[in-house]
Parts: sequence; C-alpha cells; structure tokens
Amino acid sequence: MAEKSFTHFDASGNANMVDVTDKAETFREAVAAGSVIMEADTLAMIAQGDHKKGDVLAVARIAGIQAAKKCSDLIPLCHPLMLTSVKLEFDIDRDNNAVHIRARCKLSGQTGVEMEALTAVSVAALTIYDMCKAVDKGMTVNNVRLVSKSGGRSGEWSAAS
Amino acid sequence: MAEKSFTHFDASGNANMVDVTDKAETFREAVAAGSVIMEADTLAMIAQGDHKKGDVLAVARIAGIQAAKKCSDLIPLCHPLMLTSVKLEFDIDRDNNAVHIRARCKLSGQTGVEMEALTAVSVAALTIYDMCKAVDKGMTVNNVRLVSKSGGRSGEWSAAS
Amino acid sequence: MAEKSFTHFDASGNANMVDVTDKAETFREAVAAGSVIMEADTLAMIAQGDHKKGDVLAVARIAGIQAAKKCSDLIPLCHPLMLTSVKLEFDIDRDNNAVHIRARCKLSGQTGVEMEALTAVSVAALTIYDMCKAVDKGMTVNNVRLVSKSGGRSGEWSAAS
Amino acid sequence: MAEKSFTHFDASGNANMVDVTDKAETFREAVAAGSVIMEADTLAMIAQGDHKKGDVLAVARIAGIQAAKKCSDLIPLCHPLMLTSVKLEFDIDRDNNAVHIRARCKLSGQTGVEMEALTAVSVAALTIYDMCKAVDKGMTVNNVRLVSKSGGRSGEWSAAS
Amino acid sequence: MAEKSFTHFDASGNANMVDVTDKAETFREAVAAGSVIMEADTLAMIAQGDHKKGDVLAVARIAGIQAAKKCSDLIPLCHPLMLTSVKLEFDIDRDNNAVHIRARCKLSGQTGVEMEALTAVSVAALTIYDMCKAVDKGMTVNNVRLVSKSGGRSGEWSAAS
Amino acid sequence: MAEKSFTHFDASGNANMVDVTDKAETFREAVAAGSVIMEADTLAMIAQGDHKKGDVLAVARIAGIQAAKKCSDLIPLCHPLMLTSVKLEFDIDRDNNAVHIRARCKLSGQTGVEMEALTAVSVAALTIYDMCKAVDKGMTVNNVRLVSKSGGRSGEWSAAS
Repeated sequence: MAEKSFTHFDASGNANMVDVTDKAETFREAVAAGSVIMEADTLAMIAQGDHKKGDVLAVARIAGIQAAKKCSDLIPLCHPLMLTSVKLEFDIDRDNNAVHIRARCKLSGQTGVEMEALTAVSVAALTIYDMCKAVDKGMTVNNVRLVSKSGGRSGEWSAAS
Repeated sequence: MAEKSFTHFDASGNANMVDVTDKAETFREAVAAGSVIMEADTLAMIAQGDHKKGDVLAVARIAGIQAAKKCSDLIPLCHPLMLTSVKLEFDIDRDNNAVHIRARCKLSGQTGVEMEALTAVSVAALTIYDMCKAVDKGMTVNNVRLVSKSGGRSGEWSAAS
Repeated sequence: MAEKSFTHFDASGNANMVDVTDKAETFREAVAAGSVIMEADTLAMIAQGDHKKGDVLAVARIAGIQAAKKCSDLIPLCHPLMLTSVKLEFDIDRDNNAVHIRARCKLSGQTGVEMEALTAVSVAALTIYDMCKAVDKGMTVNNVRLVSKSGGRSGEWSAAS
Repeated sequence: MAEKSFTHFDASGNANMVDVTDKAETFREAVAAGSVIMEADTLAMIAQGDHKKGDVLAVARIAGIQAAKKCSDLIPLCHPLMLTSVKLEFDIDRDNNAVHIRARCKLSGQTGVEMEALTAVSVAALTIYDMCKAVDKGMTVNNVRLVSKSGGRSGEWSAAS
Repeated sequence: MAEKSFTHFDASGNANMVDVTDKAETFREAVAAGSVIMEADTLAMIAQGDHKKGDVLAVARIAGIQAAKKCSDLIPLCHPLMLTSVKLEFDIDRDNNAVHIRARCKLSGQTGVEMEALTAVSVAALTIYDMCKAVDKGMTVNNVRLVSKSGGRSGEWSAAS
Repeated sequence: MAEKSFTHFDASGNANMVDVTDKAETFREAVAAGSVIMEADTLAMIAQGDHKKGDVLAVARIAGIQAAKKCSDLIPLCHPLMLTSVKLEFDIDRDNNAVHIRARCKLSGQTGVEMEALTAVSVAALTIYDMCKAVDKGMTVNNVRLVSKSGGRSGEWSAAS
C-alpha cells in the first residue's frame, strides 16, 4: 500500500478539490445504505404512518433527496454536479427494530456520486431521528456505507457482503 | 406507552413544524457522537495528518461546524436557531480502527440543539469518508447517536451507557 | 395619501433593509393564502393521493415549510428571523377545481412574518405545479395574498373579504 | 385520460426525482408569467421608481433571477441544472392596476426549465409585495402560469390564450 | 503582546467557533469600507447608470445586503445572527477613478457584526467587477477594512485614519 | 471606446443575466489574487500555525473553495456552473507583512470562471480577517484582482504587471 495517498492533498499537505478537468464524462451510479435502530414501539409508530397517522418516511425521503442536491455545499471538497436521478427506499425491519435506508444516485459526469448517495442516506436518517425523538431519544444511525458504485476511472466497486 | 405520539404530525397526520412560540427561552446543550470505522492503514494515514501530510480531521471539523449551522435547512421540520457554540472533537482509536467524533452545541432558545449536534457529527463523518475514499471505499459510519442533552421542558437526558 | 412612501428606499431612492434595531420585540403572526387552479382530472388525481397513489400535498407541505425558513434568502430586503411556527393547510375544492393553500407563521421578534407566510404559500403552490405538470401544464397559481397579520407597530390587519 | 399518472411517484406511491439519465440533451426554453394586482396609488408609486424615488422593479428583477438559480433547492423534486439565460420583464398596466411579470429561462439539458421560470415570476412578485406592503397590504399575486415551453420529449406547448 | 492568541483555536490548535453562550446581549454596530479602482471610462459608464443606462450600483447594493445575511454560511467560524439593519453606500470618486463602498450593520446580540459588514463590502465590490468586466478586466478591489465597531466586550474601536 | 457597453443591461437599462445559450463550450481557466495586510505580530502568529498552534490558512483555504462553489448564489448575474478544479495558495510575505492569496479555477463550459476565482480569494481573505481580528482589527484586504484568464470568446487575458 506504499503508493497510496489521499487525493485531496497536494505535495505540501494542503487540502484542495481534486482537479477533474481532464477526466472523461462517463455514466456514474452509486448506491449507499444505512440503518436507524430504535425501540420496537417507535418502529411500530413509524410503520403505522402509511395509514394516515403521519408519514415519517415520506418526510425523510424528501429530506434525503434535497440533501443529495446539497452535497457539494456540505462536503467541502466535493465538486458541484448535476444529478439526473436520486431514489430513496426504506425498509421496515421488525426483527431488528430498524429502518433500513438505501439511496441510489446517477449522472453522466466527470466525478462520482458516492458522496451524494451517502449524504442522502445520512440526512434521511437524521430526519427520522428528528421526527421520532420526542418518543425515543436513544435511536442510533448505524452502518452508513457505500454499497456499490460504477463508472469513472476506478470502475465497478461493491462492498464485501 | 399509549399516549405517546409524534410531535411533528397534527391530528390529521399532516407534518408540520412544532409550534414553540410559547416555550420558555432556556439554556440548551446537546452532545452527539459517532464513529467512522476503516482499515488500519487508512487510520494510520489520517493519524499522520497532524504532521503535514494533509490534515483530514481539520477539514472534517470545519465541515461539521458549518453543517450544524445549516441544520434547519437540511432537516425539514427543524426550527431555525442561533447557535452560540459548536465544538467538535476527534479521537483516533487504533484498537478499533476508528475515528470517534463528538459534537457539542449550545444556545439559549426555545428549542433544543440535538439535531444540530447530530448533523455536525454526520457531516464530519461523511467528510472523512470523502477525503479517504480513494484509498478505502469500505469505511462505515456507525453509532451516530445523542449522548446527552440539557435544557427545555424535557430537561436532562443521557444515553444509557 | 401624500405622505405615504416605500419604506425600503432612503431619501436618495436607494434600496436598503429597513432598520428595525429599535423596534420592540413583540409576538407576530401572519396568515397567507393562495390557490392552484387545475383541470378536474388533475384535482381528482391529487385527491387520491391520500390513498397511496402518491401524496402530492405532503411534498408541497414540506416544500412550503422549508421555503418559509429561506424567506430572507429569497426576498432581498427581508430580515433574517427565527420562526417559531409554520403550518400549512390544503383544502381540495372540487366545485372550483382548486387546491386552496393557507400558511400560518409565528415568532416573537422585531419584524413581521407576512413574507414568510406568502413565501410558504407560493412555493407550496409551485411544488403542486411541478408534481402535476406532466398531466396538466395549464394550472395557474391564483390569489396569493395576505389574509391577516397581528403584532408590531401596525398592529392587526385583515384582508377585506 | 386513463393512462395519465404523476411522474414523481413510483408504483408504491413514493415521491422521487424523475430519472432523466437517459434523456437526450436538447435546447430548452420556457416562458412563465404572473401579475401583482394593487391599488392605483401603489402602482403610481412603483411607476415613479424609474425617476429616482426608488426602483422597486429593479430589486424584483434581481430577486427573480436569483430565485431561478435556486429552483432545485426550493422545489423538492426538481433537478439541479445550469441555466444559460434568465430574463425578466415587467409591464405596468394602469388600466388594471397591475404589474405584469414575465420570465424566460433557457438551457441545453436533459430536463425542462418551466419550474425555473415560474419560480422567477413568483419570487419577483413576492419582492414587489415586500417592498410595497407598508402602503398596500392588500396586493395579490395572480395568474402565475406557464406561457410556453419548447424542447424535450413533450416538445412545444403554449397556454391557450 | 505575549498573551495574545487567536480566539478560534483551542489549546490543541483545533479550530472551533468561539463559545459566546455567556456573553451579554448588547447593541452592536460595525462599519466597513473598501474601494474598486478602475479606468476612467469605466467609472464614467457606472456614473451614467443613474440615468437609465443600467444601474450597476443598484445591483451591487442588493448583492451586498444579501451577502451580509449569508455571512455565517461563508465564513466558517462565524455565528449565525439576526441582523436588524444593513445599509450600503457608494461614492463615485472621479479624482481617483474609484467607487468607494461603505456598509453599516447592526443588531442586538452576543457577537459582533464586523464580518457581516466586511462581507457586504466585498461582495458588492465583486458584483461591480462582474458587471463591468466586459469592458475593464483590470479593476482591483482595494483597502477592504473595518472602519469602526461598537458594542460587546471589546467596546468601541475605530481604524486609525 | 464608443461601442463599449455593459453586457448585463439590455437596451432599456434593465439588468439581466447574459444569455450564453449559444456560446461554445470551451475549456476555461482563471487565476485571481489578493493580499491581507496586517501587523508583523499577527503574521508571525499565522506563520506558526503550521506548527500546531492553530492553522488559520487551512481554514481560509476551505472557506475559499466553498465560496467558489457558491459564486452564482452571491453574485446576482453570474451563471451557475460546475467547477472541475479550485485551488488556493497562500504565501506568507514577511517583508510586507502580508499573506498573499492566489486562486485558480477551471471548467469546460459556456462561461468563464473569473468571478469564481475572485470570490474564492475574497472569502479566504475575509476568513483570515475573522480568525485574527481578536488580535488585529486593522488588517486590510488589498489588491483583489484578476491575474489571468483563458478560454471563451475573449480568449487569453493577463493583468499588466
């Protein structure tokens, strides 16, 4: 691993945006995931949201989509880019008292969309926390991670499962 | 737990900002924490950052502070508020190949700062991911949680340890 | 009406933020309203949104709340302020093929919240347009207006009905 | 109209950004319009703005242009895009005590600019309201609508006149 | 000067927002200034702006006011605050081929408004550059500085003249 | 110079974004520079920042990069664009008690990146001011200017030295 280095620092150790001017514009896709762990009662209340008691996941989905669009404003060295697709899915897992979140982002561009997908998952998770914190302050956001990416010089990548 | 309900929904199940107009202005403080788990080599590279090879944690600290200020723009039903203090600490844990992040937010106001602290931790974690992803795409953000809060009607709260 | 003048211009005609430094901090409330007029079929599709076909109004509600918080960023001479409450209501009016929108904003401060309420209505209306434009490009946003305000030097005001 | 559906919802009724990844990049243009209705005296004051008493419409024009650029931040499911032109025109109509606003947006891209033009009109209208509300709180924003669009799969569209 | 230190760093040299939680809320005011130096012909064109050829300074004034409101989003360790007044003045100086800019900001709060005034001046200056760069790319922004401040623990301060 | 005119105004003197729809997409690059002048002691404290006393320039670098990305939000008539590179360099000049700042921006697009580079320099300079103002309120930002640009219809340009 001798030659590995952080791409955001120059030879003097100064942080800068990576120069992608000369990179080819290719189709890029990234999938990120994460989970919010909570009490069983809290999960039951969220699950009822489908039936007109207040839909926590609908609000979290919008928050996640909007956050993906703000990624370059949040992560200092991210490039601005024009997402062509952001999709979030939520999965209610009663066995593990969890809501699992998955975000998929796409674009054709010179830089990948991993950070956009991770940001969407993180902000969707925080929104779930916000809306449920009055009943369950002990919720945790866990295992926020990149699931897969494609496109760009580094090509395909999938998390070991 | 019969009487518990989500505070962000009205009787018809519509999401709205909680009305805090009549709440007293009190001193509020919240501490949140979370961890980024990575390969040992990646952690070693971050640890070297102190010594002029490029300081990942300095960038993540700034990102976290700025994200705390953007919280009400990211989390749909959060109130705008005027933080009087945001502090982030990072702890390099070689035993667990982790960077632990801790954020403390303060203000005197009508609403708590839990979400600001959690947002600071999450965005600092994502920034670490961004800066290290060229060498380690498998990093995960874990255990983002509220550690403690004080102030407001619900008073003191600490996570069970 | 001889003595009336626009408060945002100084004696030389230069636009500036009104100086509210010396105004008392009082409780302020404003209600604004507006309507989106559309085809009967479009309204029927929105009305079905309650029943799991996709809830247009839930998305519009979130957009309106977030826009109220961004008001001082959108309207150049508005003061930044800290809303303590934003609520949006939607009313489906089949007789007039309209969705009526109503927003109520509150805070204790030195300046009113009329613009915040009007911004919430306008952006909620635009969001309805956005989500329905694939089936009905001819929708119009109508009669966006202040309904009432209270607090501040000018006191109570209600629109003539 | 049986097969019509809202493009922003998937089969389960979940709101998501429309995936435009595979759409062709074409030249797009959209024109939107709207009107601010007011008292005759208020209109007279605005009309004098050209002559150094304070130019309400100059401020509204800047606000509208900046709002067009913020569209994807305001409307939750709008794609980020790079406008190549935004123009606003104002027309003082003494017969109807109205300021008519017209915005034209352009770009070459995978998605249309209707929402950008509508957002520009709406925020310009709100800015006129803001600057004149000290003398006329009863102003209304009326008939905000798409006038025409071209480009993209749905091609040319003009509002029935 | 032995005991002087930068207030934004803690004992370990980590950058953090200064904790102002315990500071008294006092009336604060700050005046900043700066100049844009240009060719005589460019200045003449700007000066004609009052007479319907296009008012560069009106646009710069709006840009400066809006930038003051964004200060805490631009300057990483600035606190969010609620300005009660922002005023910009421009002075055309034909002897020195300069536009002089002056911004005054006010609020009652726990932290000063120096940065808001400096940001307003800087962004107004950049806006002048932007609008004139087609005819004069060699313009420079000079002598951006704090002129005076009052309020807060450090009290009155005026620049040596 | 008879035919010179400001490109942001139409024939009626109304400010609008320049229409770049028909401009070719070319490689663009711009370099801007500026200086912060301060007391010798202040400069000495900044210079020590490399050695763990708190790194002012690292924070200013991040602020400048993020500001470049926000340029079209700050400067009213700037087009949104997608920077592919932003780099900032700082040079400590003990002879003149100055920190010199230089920013280089790049992209392939229809409009230049001069304003992005100038914005990066200005906000980096203001951030230095912010972090040092507790010890030296008399610092000034000087000589913010375009150094060179390439690409686009107007081609190469360099400041006279």
